[in-house]
Amino acid sequence: MTKKQSKDFFSDRSSLDMDQYLVFDYVFESFIDPEEAAAHLCQEQSTAQWKRVGVDEDLREQFGAKVIELSVEKTLDHPSLKLPSVSDTRSYVCRVKIAHPHGNFGPKLPNLLTAACGEGAFFSPGISLIKLIDIEFPSKFLEHFEGPKFGVEGLRDILGIYDRPIFFGVVKPNIGLPPEPFAELARQSWLGGLDIAKDDELLGDVPWSPLSKRTALVGKVRKECEKATGMAKIYLVNITDEVDRLIELHDIVVRNGANAVMLNTMTVGLSAARMLQKHTKVPLVAHFDFIAAFTRIPNYGVSSELFTKLQRLAGFDSIILPGFGSRMKTSDSEVFNNVEECLKPMGHIKPSLPVPAGSQWAASTGELHQKLNTIDFGIVPGRGVFGHPMGPRAGAASLLQGWEAYHRGIPLEDYAKSHVELRASMEAFGN
Amino acid sequence: MTKKQSKDFFSDRSSLDMDQYLVFDYVFESFIDPEEAAAHLCQEQSTAQWKRVGVDEDLREQFGAKVIELSVEKTLDHPSLKLPSVSDTRSYVCRVKIAHPHGNFGPKLPNLLTAACGEGAFFSPGISLIKLIDIEFPSKFLEHFEGPKFGVEGLRDILGIYDRPIFFGVVKPNIGLPPEPFAELARQSWLGGLDIAKDDELLGDVPWSPLSKRTALVGKVRKECEKATGMAKIYLVNITDEVDRLIELHDIVVRNGANAVMLNTMTVGLSAARMLQKHTKVPLVAHFDFIAAFTRIPNYGVSSELFTKLQRLAGFDSIILPGFGSRMKTSDSEVFNNVEECLKPMGHIKPSLPVPAGSQWAASTGELHQKLNTIDFGIVPGRGVFGHPMGPRAGAASLLQGWEAYHRGIPLEDYAKSHVELRASMEAFGN
Repeated sequence: MTKKQSKDFFSDRSSLDMDQYLVFDYVFESFIDPEEAAAHLCQEQSTAQWKRVGVDEDLREQFGAKVIELSVEKTLDHPSLKLPSVSDTRSYVCRVKIAHPHGNFGPKLPNLLTAACGEGAFFSPGISLIKLIDIEFPSKFLEHFEGPKFGVEGLRDILGIYDRPIFFGVVKPNIGLPPEPFAELARQSWLGGLDIAKDDELLGDVPWSPLSKRTALVGKVRKECEKATGMAKIYLVNITDEVDRLIELHDIVVRNGANAVMLNTMTVGLSAARMLQKHTKVPLVAHFDFIAAFTRIPNYGVSSELFTKLQRLAGFDSIILPGFGSRMKTSDSEVFNNVEECLKPMGHIKPSLPVPAGSQWAASTGELHQKLNTIDFGIVPGRGVFGHPMGPRAGAASLLQGWEAYHRGIPLEDYAKSHVELRASMEAFGN
Repeated sequence: MTKKQSKDFFSDRSSLDMDQYLVFDYVFESFIDPEEAAAHLCQEQSTAQWKRVGVDEDLREQFGAKVIELSVEKTLDHPSLKLPSVSDTRSYVCRVKIAHPHGNFGPKLPNLLTAACGEGAFFSPGISLIKLIDIEFPSKFLEHFEGPKFGVEGLRDILGIYDRPIFFGVVKPNIGLPPEPFAELARQSWLGGLDIAKDDELLGDVPWSPLSKRTALVGKVRKECEKATGMAKIYLVNITDEVDRLIELHDIVVRNGANAVMLNTMTVGLSAARMLQKHTKVPLVAHFDFIAAFTRIPNYGVSSELFTKLQRLAGFDSIILPGFGSRMKTSDSEVFNNVEECLKPMGHIKPSLPVPAGSQWAASTGELHQKLNTIDFGIVPGRGVFGHPMGPRAGAASLLQGWEAYHRGIPLEDYAKSHVELRASMEAFGN
């Protein structure tokens, strides 16, 4: 590419009608001139060949992606990561914002992914490593998406809880239990105070626990527990399955008394989630399976923050994501950013309840509140409730006691003296 | 985890009914005892908590994943790749095969991905880097999948071509052309000898080229070209779109005369592809968008070879994948392996036509044949046909001339003397 050709792929926000453009924000490492690398990136993701042979035309004006910001952040002797098939030479670490005409494909998630992180991004000449960090959406694009049907407020309205975080719990044993004992565990956890008893992400519709039977039993138990406690309860059922079954499964489980459904997002795809969003009668909850495979490497893949944003855009009312602690292999700043992506203003798109997950127990709600400085989040223990030495009812109770102690400024040790469930929890899970 | 607990997750093939198990093959780097790390990996992907509190039971026998092979391949002073949130200490590079009971989830692609590369794999204690290399499928699992409806033979039957590779071409300009000039380019390329004229992966159903109008025009032109040339022709249309539109779009385009459909697999998801496979009347072709984001890093993510296998399992009759040459950032051995995954025996699942892509022109077919030693592949130039200095008809003709020369053992330079299209191609694209 000549300097002149490369310049043709540069523009700025003031020269463009930005309503017509998404802004793709990448970090990349190039082993050629950064301007040329950025121009290639535009070309590859839009008008790779912008004229017919023998015709005087240039399709780039309307259809070309354009560099609107480019900075070289660092120069390295080698790419920050050695790959077998890319140049192991001096590398420029660059940050680039590219204005991409959304009219090239329209308000469709698969085509958005194709444009932003398809062949164009990962096979662009002169670029060794690349990570898609963020996408800015103009309201002209956003208006085609409904986003979460319920959002944080809708979830709180269902539960009638407005003054604290939400207590999820993953029924354990996660795999292998028939519906009857499974329902009994859910019952105990709800009676103990859990708001949302949920299926593990590994549990689906299986012969040893058919979704129809499981939801019928657990749905009935849920209603009994609502009566017994005077509190609303949610059974969050994992309907992750082949995409042509999702609508049917949703209808069965909702009819049976489940009142929220979970998808392991990237195993069914964002677009399948959006399909379900259009149809669903109950809140949709996302689980993070598979996402780490393309988000964890620095300067490569796609950022987890963007995937949180896209899950919210697709319509998830709550997003379970990797939380704090070394167990979850995610930096604190990444967790903070992901929580923010769930809650920050995004046009008419409602906020999504973030659920930072990982090895949680009675102390976790207070710790999380201290870090996040909001009550708009959930915790989602498994063993912290269902492996509690006194059983799931006590496990659930210990969660509330932990929160009460924190909320009233009482050290856990002190509160535990008069709360046996909390004391047992501290002995079992404290360190 | 104690040594004893860890041992409980070990078994061997002869002790298990292997019909009931998938075998997940991972490479991982651990900073703890490899046996314990492998046991954690089993636990996290299956029975994370294998008993109820106060109940004497052990769900691992039926539902637990089991280590059946484990070897330490190398010891490193540090993980091969530094990540912000994992231990930067001595690391064991391990290869492990895990027998995972497929009855835990059943013959469903999203649930398979959840089990093999979900939270269990990427958040397992003591493991810094992990890559899912392969999955072995017993016939008991495979029998639930139909795989490609046409396969290599079916594609050859449609085209009536049995003695050479298949010539695909991506109509360019890829983005921005209205249906009329687009159809004219396709016509020229078919008249020149192309077998399959296809949409670019960036082109979908858009107001400036509605799929219904584009397929009606190009479908008509296709039939005209079949008459004119006496050869069968395929218009491969990219129907990548929101998954709830795929069936409808398939029906529209097939009615209009398109006779193969493409999906950018990972942007819609493998499960959506399987849904379409059940319905389709025409061959399905996969494009590799997004896959590099999780396959390119050594010892991290998922192997591209496995994703080729999964695409074949989902039902793609042909798989476009990154081919040879530095432009495609893929090692030669990875390309070979991927081609093999398309073609090798896999129970009743038909072979898929591999199309190793990237910067191809008239010389590429011979070069590929020399490397692959089979005629069961396709090439898929864009500019090599549609940027040919004499136009797409000549561009397509040059492909056939290049193959003829190779096939007859005539040096390209010699053959070019009497074949002007080939000569122009060599001048334009031959370095």
